[in-house]
Amino acid sequence: MRITIIGIGLIGGSMAIKLKESGFATEIIAVDNNDDHCRIALEKGLADQVMTLEDAITISDLIIVAIPVDATLVLLPRLLSLINKQAVMDVGSTKQMICEAVKDHPKRSRFCATHPMWGTEYSGPLAATVNAFSGKAAVICNALESDGDVLDTVKTLYAGLNMHLVTMDAKAHDVHTAYISHVSHITSFALANTVLEKEKEDDAIFELASGGFESTVRLAKSNPEMWVPIFEQNRDNVLDVLNEHISQLKKFKACLEKDNYEYLAALIKNANSIERIIK
Amino acid sequence: MRITIIGIGLIGGSMAIKLKESGFATEIIAVDNNDDHCRIALEKGLADQVMTLEDAITISDLIIVAIPVDATLVLLPRLLSLINKQAVMDVGSTKQMICEAVKDHPKRSRFCATHPMWGTEYSGPLAATVNAFSGKAAVICNALESDGDVLDTVKTLYAGLNMHLVTMDAKAHDVHTAYISHVSHITSFALANTVLEKEKEDDAIFELASGGFESTVRLAKSNPEMWVPIFEQNRDNVLDVLNEHISQLKKFKACLEKDNYEYLAALIKNANSIERIIK
Repeated sequence: MRITIIGIGLIGGSMAIKLKESGFATEIIAVDNNDDHCRIALEKGLADQVMTLEDAITISDLIIVAIPVDATLVLLPRLLSLINKQAVMDVGSTKQMICEAVKDHPKRSRFCATHPMWGTEYSGPLAATVNAFSGKAAVICNALESDGDVLDTVKTLYAGLNMHLVTMDAKAHDVHTAYISHVSHITSFALANTVLEKEKEDDAIFELASGGFESTVRLAKSNPEMWVPIFEQNRDNVLDVLNEHISQLKKFKACLEKDNYEYLAALIKNANSIERIIK
Repeated sequence: MRITIIGIGLIGGSMAIKLKESGFATEIIAVDNNDDHCRIALEKGLADQVMTLEDAITISDLIIVAIPVDATLVLLPRLLSLINKQAVMDVGSTKQMICEAVKDHPKRSRFCATHPMWGTEYSGPLAATVNAFSGKAAVICNALESDGDVLDTVKTLYAGLNMHLVTMDAKAHDVHTAYISHVSHITSFALANTVLEKEKEDDAIFELASGGFESTVRLAKSNPEMWVPIFEQNRDNVLDVLNEHISQLKKFKACLEKDNYEYLAALIKNANSIERIIK
């Protein structure tokens, strides 16, 4: 199968590696408006060719859209108007506005809305890695709006990446990702800013940063070009969760202010039960 | 050198492994009021013998206190009254109250207050690991209050664990650790509670939890027996940082509420500069 990847960055590039390795892709064509990324993709062997969007579409069986979600919102309707019988999928971190944008498009059924639940704090084709996706969930949204053959292609692709499939509607997806991904990023960004605010006064923090700190703050390296559009498109859910998170933090604050260490222990014990969700 | 480790858990046990391996310890004696921990320590070879505190002290050159900081506060003055010329060190996550507790003790100079900046979300001797400490900072506080030979022993010990030494006074230590360790734990606990609050309604979250989420929330598995006393002893600094963190989170909230995505991008760009601190 000939596959075009639009946006040969962390996600697109990491997919390219596995799709070639497994033989699912006989050829990978990269489309990217960043010339450096195109060059690196060719050098690293992520792509066999670089083409313009129009040229790539005509010779491809599957087109994967792996660009920031604001760009996806603009590109996707145009892309569906350009295709014939090709399959199209996206891999964006929001799903409701993207599905909404092509809801009434005559080629809607050639599109499958997906979200592989993997990423790192790095971006660009140099960050693409062979150790991606495996063991994580791939979400397919609004599956009934896609043609059977498109769904089959997408399912086979994710099975090849060793991901387990989860199906849900786009609205539910955006609620869940607000909880388990988007607000994690906001807490990391905010924690980084908290420390950086302090660090103006003293840089002993540099020397002391430990494993626990690194793991909580590593997401704070994630880039704004990707994340601002995610927060914008999932604004209402993110705000809901952020309000809940701030009120949970205020419970810890109240315990300390009132020297109520019994309730503090109860809050921590409750948090410990997250072990049920993450090993 | 014959070393007694009081509290043969994650930290004490991990130290034991390396101290034996390097030859720095000719014999490790475990003192622990948890019989299971004593048994596991002997089975795993973390300790050569298990003894009562009194028996262990008399035959040891160095005594390492590796128990929760509330227990340290009670034990340490008693321990200093029992020793002769032995060296004593602790490894607790708070330093000011511990140093205060022995400030006027006639044997104060036989004690060195330390904090190796390493840990995991797990506890107990089964969690002890050979891959501990290396490359991290070991803090020595109020060094001028310790005898030269005690300091030399502690420095050699930490060099053998492949840690780099940082010296500061106990007060500064507690300010810094509030930023880079204690509040990271509170944000993790609160994020776990946020998700668990939601999960009552729906458990799709189980299936979706991704790497980013796991890394932000893993600290939430840390146990209350260790952490409540840390928060209690470092209450004022933790409250300061927690207030700052909540106000940083509110900036993100305000950006979303006001649809101010330009300022949101600026907040994220600022957070990105945490790269200077963590690689």
